[in-house]
Amino acid sequence: MKSPLSAEILSVGTELLLGNTTNTDARDISIYLSELGINVFYHTVVGDNPERLAKAVEIARGRADIIITTGGLGPTCDDLTKQVLAKAFGLEMVFHEELAEEMKRYFREIIGVDNMTENNLQQAYLPAGCTVFRNEWGTAPGCAFEAGGVRVIMLPGPPRECNAMFTACAMPYLRALSDEVILSHSLHIVGSGESAVEAKLRSMMNELQNPTLAPYAKEGEVMLRITAKAKTAEEAEKMMQPVIDKVREILGDIIYGIDTGSLEHVVFELLKSKNMTISTAESCTGGFIAKRITDLSGSSAVFMGGAITYATQSKTSVLGVPDELIKKHGVISGEVAAEMAKRARELFGSSISVSTTGLAGPEGDGINPVGTVFVALAAENEVFVTQLNSGFGRTRVRTLASNCAFDMVRRYLTGLPVVVDYHKR
Amino acid sequence: MKSPLSAEILSVGTELLLGNTTNTDARDISIYLSELGINVFYHTVVGDNPERLAKAVEIARGRADIIITTGGLGPTCDDLTKQVLAKAFGLEMVFHEELAEEMKRYFREIIGVDNMTENNLQQAYLPAGCTVFRNEWGTAPGCAFEAGGVRVIMLPGPPRECNAMFTACAMPYLRALSDEVILSHSLHIVGSGESAVEAKLRSMMNELQNPTLAPYAKEGEVMLRITAKAKTAEEAEKMMQPVIDKVREILGDIIYGIDTGSLEHVVFELLKSKNMTISTAESCTGGFIAKRITDLSGSSAVFMGGAITYATQSKTSVLGVPDELIKKHGVISGEVAAEMAKRARELFGSSISVSTTGLAGPEGDGINPVGTVFVALAAENEVFVTQLNSGFGRTRVRTLASNCAFDMVRRYLTGLPVVVDYHKR
Repeated sequence: MKSPLSAEILSVGTELLLGNTTNTDARDISIYLSELGINVFYHTVVGDNPERLAKAVEIARGRADIIITTGGLGPTCDDLTKQVLAKAFGLEMVFHEELAEEMKRYFREIIGVDNMTENNLQQAYLPAGCTVFRNEWGTAPGCAFEAGGVRVIMLPGPPRECNAMFTACAMPYLRALSDEVILSHSLHIVGSGESAVEAKLRSMMNELQNPTLAPYAKEGEVMLRITAKAKTAEEAEKMMQPVIDKVREILGDIIYGIDTGSLEHVVFELLKSKNMTISTAESCTGGFIAKRITDLSGSSAVFMGGAITYATQSKTSVLGVPDELIKKHGVISGEVAAEMAKRARELFGSSISVSTTGLAGPEGDGINPVGTVFVALAAENEVFVTQLNSGFGRTRVRTLASNCAFDMVRRYLTGLPVVVDYHKR
Repeated sequence: MKSPLSAEILSVGTELLLGNTTNTDARDISIYLSELGINVFYHTVVGDNPERLAKAVEIARGRADIIITTGGLGPTCDDLTKQVLAKAFGLEMVFHEELAEEMKRYFREIIGVDNMTENNLQQAYLPAGCTVFRNEWGTAPGCAFEAGGVRVIMLPGPPRECNAMFTACAMPYLRALSDEVILSHSLHIVGSGESAVEAKLRSMMNELQNPTLAPYAKEGEVMLRITAKAKTAEEAEKMMQPVIDKVREILGDIIYGIDTGSLEHVVFELLKSKNMTISTAESCTGGFIAKRITDLSGSSAVFMGGAITYATQSKTSVLGVPDELIKKHGVISGEVAAEMAKRARELFGSSISVSTTGLAGPEGDGINPVGTVFVALAAENEVFVTQLNSGFGRTRVRTLASNCAFDMVRRYLTGLPVVVDYHKR
């Protein structure tokens, strides 16, 4: 096959055309494809309509080497992607007994339903001769086939399944098409915005050709992706190392990890490695910090528990924060945040504790600007307090406050200054 | 023009094809167009490449009555949308002195820059004879024109500008073209899977043409969308009512709302209307229930706080669940869930309280199957306990357990049976 290959992402689903869902699948697959050195020239979205889908397939096969479909593999009568694609490429549909068995097992063991409804069996039909992509994250299997000089890859629509199947199944399948190795590293950054990061690295990003350096904004975080193409993995690694070193030199300790999981995952691993535990005392974040820790499997090894003292009186009745302290400094204050963290640490008997008190908005309190949050970390003999002024946006304020709490723990556990001015970075 | 009209959204920008940004413009415009009764049959994304854009325009004009472009109207050399579209439709580009003046004023007064760079003037060129859409939210103006039987609307790419210009300028322009109304209603369902819902409604969905009935799966929930086209809004409503009634008859009380927000939003509104408050005692959900309530603006009116008693000893030390009760029944038991809810209700002084204790996995405890969760609701003189066996998948188990808690509150507050078997639905 000629190189570089070009791909079109063909997303199928009337919900996308109605605006009920956003096409994050196309975005995520585009990121992966760019890492693989495959050019994406078009995204197309079409509804659950066999005629229009067939026309879109005709157009796509005339302009792309690889067609990647998302959606329309499920059990409902709207799910027509496989049938339309198989017909377009002249392939029969074949029933896979082993996939049907897997589905029945999934329903029995994961969903807890003994009698899977018949319509689910539709998902066990796949185009003849395809490479089957088993779905370990849901029920609808995906697949890949080559026909008429075009590679077709079909993935399920739900973002979690689409992402997991792309990286586990489609990525190795596509890698095998190229004789070049493409490798990437991610640098994870907290406490600085995308435009600030980009301003610092702009000249470097513009100069670099191979490896490349590109920023991606995530919720309250920035990820930098470094990608190199080479004949061997060793060579690619060797090309990336000086770039990583240079970025580290420029950005310093706002980089919280390379190729790691989330910020909370980094904190979880640090706590585990030091045999330490944590607890939380949350006001404006309302359980978001605890939720992020307990999203992680095995979090019970480090997380003792938390108090969500949302109503002011619960800060006193549950945590024992003195009423006078609240009266004197106001419930949104560094003093109250510090006391909340100290008391939670004692109540839950954890090594450290983090707390938040602030104004997520949109309503103000007539005293503090919306977005004012105090975040505290209490350890054995010390308490640290950071003040944030994140501005408007309830989700944004809560995300940045919980990021700040995790970042303070990371800084504390790695010996960095715990309190930094996040607004000057 | 023939009716109903069909539109294609053509988004221009290499950043979309690299996955650097998500195509929220296409989603937002789709929502608006569906309200206008204009069918959206395709979304296309193409990079900042004049040849590929020209080809995409050729395809779009062959299959849509209206082409709406987003992006590529700015001042840089990548911004080619207007030039390519004007050429495709045989129109000259005309310089608008008044737009140039507006831009200079914007730079002077909003950005604080006296000497706007020359390249910005490129934005003052528009296809001859077009309707100008002034940009009050940025610098690049948009426009609309008709040529060769196709309407073309060009909007800037930044989501804020695109949204504002669509509603302020494109919406009135498009309203004038159509004489049909399309209306939709959403039925929100909890406690039953997409395939189970579809199995019950399949024959109805297949039969219906106008209105249509379609299911959408969300995290742990199902949404049904009923859409009708008619000459008037009244007529559309009249056509939908019997369908809504029939679906209600078939699905019953698993429908938690019509055209409402999330399940937690429904619960929040119910609590507010009854002047009641809630608190939480979470083990396996680890703050997820509280996080979902406090995601909502104004939640402090109903949410007192919560205890996340993740470690077993914290159930005793924080909530006061008797040690003997835990020893006797095990920490994952209906008895402990009930006691947690009762104690949290007292501790936080709330009208009701919900609790969870269970095994989210993936590690087991050697006693209960992974996915076993007890969810309790405590009110003044009564406690209700539901047992879930959600099977594997940490996120899934936690989502279903928090949905169950919210659903029990909904059922309690609306006088439905509080405890139901979610596995038989």
